Amino acid sequence: MSMGTIHGVGLGPGDPELMSVRADRLVRGARHVAYFRKAGRPGQARSIVEGMLAPGAVEFPMEYPVTTEIPLSDPRYNELLSAFYADCAAQLMRLAETGEDVIVLCEGDPFFYGSFMHLYERLKDIAPVRVVPATTGMSAAWTSTGRPITWGDDVLTVLMGTLPEEDLAGHMARADALVVMKIGRNIDKVRRALRTAGRHDDAWLVEYASMEQQTAQRLAEAPEKVTPYFSIVVVHGNGRRP
Amino acid sequence: MSMGTIHGVGLGPGDPELMSVRADRLVRGARHVAYFRKAGRPGQARSIVEGMLAPGAVEFPMEYPVTTEIPLSDPRYNELLSAFYADCAAQLMRLAETGEDVIVLCEGDPFFYGSFMHLYERLKDIAPVRVVPATTGMSAAWTSTGRPITWGDDVLTVLMGTLPEEDLAGHMARADALVVMKIGRNIDKVRRALRTAGRHDDAWLVEYASMEQQTAQRLAEAPEKVTPYFSIVVVHGNGRRP
Repeated sequence: MSMGTIHGVGLGPGDPELMSVRADRLVRGARHVAYFRKAGRPGQARSIVEGMLAPGAVEFPMEYPVTTEIPLSDPRYNELLSAFYADCAAQLMRLAETGEDVIVLCEGDPFFYGSFMHLYERLKDIAPVRVVPATTGMSAAWTSTGRPITWGDDVLTVLMGTLPEEDLAGHMARADALVVMKIGRNIDKVRRALRTAGRHDDAWLVEYASMEQQTAQRLAEAPEKVTPYFSIVVVHGNGRRP
Repeated sequence: MSMGTIHGVGLGPGDPELMSVRADRLVRGARHVAYFRKAGRPGQARSIVEGMLAPGAVEFPMEYPVTTEIPLSDPRYNELLSAFYADCAAQLMRLAETGEDVIVLCEGDPFFYGSFMHLYERLKDIAPVRVVPATTGMSAAWTSTGRPITWGDDVLTVLMGTLPEEDLAGHMARADALVVMKIGRNIDKVRRALRTAGRHDDAWLVEYASMEQQTAQRLAEAPEKVTPYFSIVVVHGNGRRP
């Protein structure tokens, strides 16, 4: 029997209509559907495909053993996650060995800061794995502001809000256009770094890009509060334009 | 009569199956279809939708008055393009005023270094304009290398090959992951900058990402020649991974 294929399917930023034609087809036709989620939550990726799965599709929720309960710097964090990804990969592998295809639902683009990458690295040399690229959350975020992100020769830098403040500020000062992801509880640090770099007044805060509850506002006018982890800060470039 | 809507429709990197469900629907249903192209060429955006347009759809090719015949630094370049974009915008506006919707086909994501932005800025305050974000060419490029572009807290910087060599090298040295676009005749300069920054050996060259003629190879192994303008250089990040 030939092995099944494991598809890492990028679902895009959240609006099901922004899913690619290929992703839409794979999701509707899948017999085995895996996805990550926080224990006790429906899971963002699973929510995007609500109402799309075929009758009888078998679901395989992969529940993170830890998200923010242990700091990233704690060695146990890495150990727990490493064991978790190895176990998930082994289960997908066993399924593929029975000849079954399986899709792994991925928010955004699978190879752009996605959890699927951790399965991909463990499976790519031992099973047929295919990846469907997708619209990123950041594309939906800058589109929601009603302003293009980059013009002409603008330099765009993408930063994670989890970086040290000084690193953030340095990169923010040197790029023309900016995207900051993984905001959540890092919002105050991100604001300070933007101020240090002289970019705070030009920054926008986008929450739930492309989803029903989407908001896009200037960061300076946004309430000083913790934002959803999937919030994105955008600073537009101002490069050459005829 | 109410005005028609002008849709800037992101088509993604080139493979029609990577078009979003919304873009697919808009393209197949459109009565008026505009797109940029170089004079005498079919146009990349138009090629992506080959076979998809409705019978009787009216096409409006917008032919650049100049592409690489005049250097960017020549003031005539800006004057010519500015007049061209103003004329295109006026024609789309006249169509919208008759109550007709029109779609503008955009390669990649419209707000990410796209020509549509120049029409958008001229139309957004005087006509209903909507933008459909899409999968970028760079997502297709890094997916084609079979390796994730960013891990953990990696910093990603996107650079245009048209930048001065020294600027390129500086940004290349400071980011974890890199994407360089608008390569074409800039390939030798891009190679030198990558070498200066110590990143040349880790770089990949992707041509025609997601299209039939796609190639992805290590830059060090690629022949020293001019590459297609839409080539993309990718350097993967190596951040935290459990």
